[in-house]
Amino acid sequence: MPVSDMVAMTLDEVAALSRAILTRHGLSPDHVEAVTATVVAGERDECASHGVYRLLVCVNTLRTGKVSMDAAPVIHDVAPALVRVDAGGAFAQLAFERGLPVLAAKAKANGIAAMALNRCVHFAALWPEVEAVVAHGLVALATTPSHAWVAPAGGVKPLFGTNPIAFGWPRPGAYPYVFDFATSAVARGEIELHRRAGKPIPEGWGIDADGQPTTDAAAALGGAMLTFGGHKGSALSTMVELIAGPLIGDMTSAESIAFDDGAGSSPYGGELIVAIDPAGFLGAQAAEHIARAEAVFDGITGQGARLPSQRRYEGRARSLANGVRVPRPLYDDLQRLLD
Amino acid sequence: MPVSDMVAMTLDEVAALSRAILTRHGLSPDHVEAVTATVVAGERDECASHGVYRLLVCVNTLRTGKVSMDAAPVIHDVAPALVRVDAGGAFAQLAFERGLPVLAAKAKANGIAAMALNRCVHFAALWPEVEAVVAHGLVALATTPSHAWVAPAGGVKPLFGTNPIAFGWPRPGAYPYVFDFATSAVARGEIELHRRAGKPIPEGWGIDADGQPTTDAAAALGGAMLTFGGHKGSALSTMVELIAGPLIGDMTSAESIAFDDGAGSSPYGGELIVAIDPAGFLGAQAAEHIARAEAVFDGITGQGARLPSQRRYEGRARSLANGVRVPRPLYDDLQRLLD
Repeated sequence: MPVSDMVAMTLDEVAALSRAILTRHGLSPDHVEAVTATVVAGERDECASHGVYRLLVCVNTLRTGKVSMDAAPVIHDVAPALVRVDAGGAFAQLAFERGLPVLAAKAKANGIAAMALNRCVHFAALWPEVEAVVAHGLVALATTPSHAWVAPAGGVKPLFGTNPIAFGWPRPGAYPYVFDFATSAVARGEIELHRRAGKPIPEGWGIDADGQPTTDAAAALGGAMLTFGGHKGSALSTMVELIAGPLIGDMTSAESIAFDDGAGSSPYGGELIVAIDPAGFLGAQAAEHIARAEAVFDGITGQGARLPSQRRYEGRARSLANGVRVPRPLYDDLQRLLD
Repeated sequence: MPVSDMVAMTLDEVAALSRAILTRHGLSPDHVEAVTATVVAGERDECASHGVYRLLVCVNTLRTGKVSMDAAPVIHDVAPALVRVDAGGAFAQLAFERGLPVLAAKAKANGIAAMALNRCVHFAALWPEVEAVVAHGLVALATTPSHAWVAPAGGVKPLFGTNPIAFGWPRPGAYPYVFDFATSAVARGEIELHRRAGKPIPEGWGIDADGQPTTDAAAALGGAMLTFGGHKGSALSTMVELIAGPLIGDMTSAESIAFDDGAGSSPYGGELIVAIDPAGFLGAQAAEHIARAEAVFDGITGQGARLPSQRRYEGRARSLANGVRVPRPLYDDLQRLLD
């Protein structure tokens, strides 16, 4: 898109736009702030699908009436190394924000701890959350089911969500090592983009309603997506269903899409976040061993391979220096949400 | 192989053979028992590469002089929810066995706990260990680096091990849900078998010493193996290096193969096992939600897909009823280890 078709914005302007839209659609002030922080982070890191674009998804979800506008998260201290945060049917961000200090304190007191977010609506990536855990000097793992769109390996019908797994590791003097990927072959939005563009999808992304491999995006969206990595990806996706579903007393992806009942809302259910304190196993030697981990990253980048968040961190540097640019049609769509 | 070329054995005879071989090669009685339990479990479950065949690998490793014959594991209670077991350079099994009751007690007291095994030699699969954790009613995750044989996605040189990830989930009245897979595209032994048979390997398994894709098994063994699932598998393998390496103060796969220094010993280093108590998050409702997880398994098998350990459990049922059959050439090789 030519520069003339892009709208330049500072990150403060992105935040102000997000606040205005979310407030206009009824979200309470605490939730507006928590959601805005996520939207700004996505736009700042040049994640087109998790920046201001997400406000469209978010408002659409608010309009279904399936999400609480103002529920205050309730923290349950259920065990020495576990905390549950009941989001009360609202977006996940505020529940995460309120629970994080408790999770971090428990991880530091016990060496390892886990936080369950319950009854929350998910529309964002997990990497902002693992980054926030890592900012406490902790190693983080986070995962959540979604809506049942993905068939198990060897199967023909949707059962799993896109079930992302995110991981974060603190790096002294550098952005953390972070990955965050769907256990589906690709994000659902990617197939949706192919459908809109009338382009075929590669083999391995989806099957049609009869369970046959397809390169037709619409047929895959009406059939089932596939997991990445065959039976191994399918096993990981099963694990996500279990540990961020029944283990924390919350919905599976099949239950989430049944609850949605065609409304087109974002996935509803739980999220599991595990935090490990390097000082727990290593005591005074933690810094020495965390420094030793740098050899792994050097071993990757030293042979010309990339670290998972490298592109995102490059985008962050650009945005922090120069602000961001939003495509004009998207900007106009967002302005209409203020009417 | 015709039945006449197979040697029928009871599981007691398998155990007796394992004890005799390991004792003959100098392993102390406690280690003999712990290793034998693993060998019997592998043979019982018809895992050809993890049954009595592994005694060849095990003895070969003992002969390198790189493994302690008799180190007693030392347990360090480092934090309320963490335990470290120093294996003192011996095989991992005894250290795991001694640490398991501590891990289980910590998981039940705190809701989640983790155990690090340190300074141990690995030659077995991880599923016997996650099954043992699950037998305590806990959810289990286990992982370990190995030797640097696998290139990162986008790279050309070995850096990661085959870095398995194993997971276990208790099922009422049924064998647990268990998976255990290498984050490499295939096990190294699989490529070795192709080399011996003079068969080409499929694309995606390995690259040659120049970093070029190859279907030549020997070229891949001399170059680098690839991860499963492209950059996602590569990210998971990186996570394994970090959390079962520096995080627990132990070797990465690159350090393990450097330590081996061409001796051909099994990988040396640490292992991380995380255990979560379903009663921690769920309290009195644990049984109800664990039962609800059965819908996930029914959703998989009900559409004709398989659960990861199904074949192994079918083998187990056969072996428990009828004993096992070992190929005559392998049986003869094992007998020679008694000379």
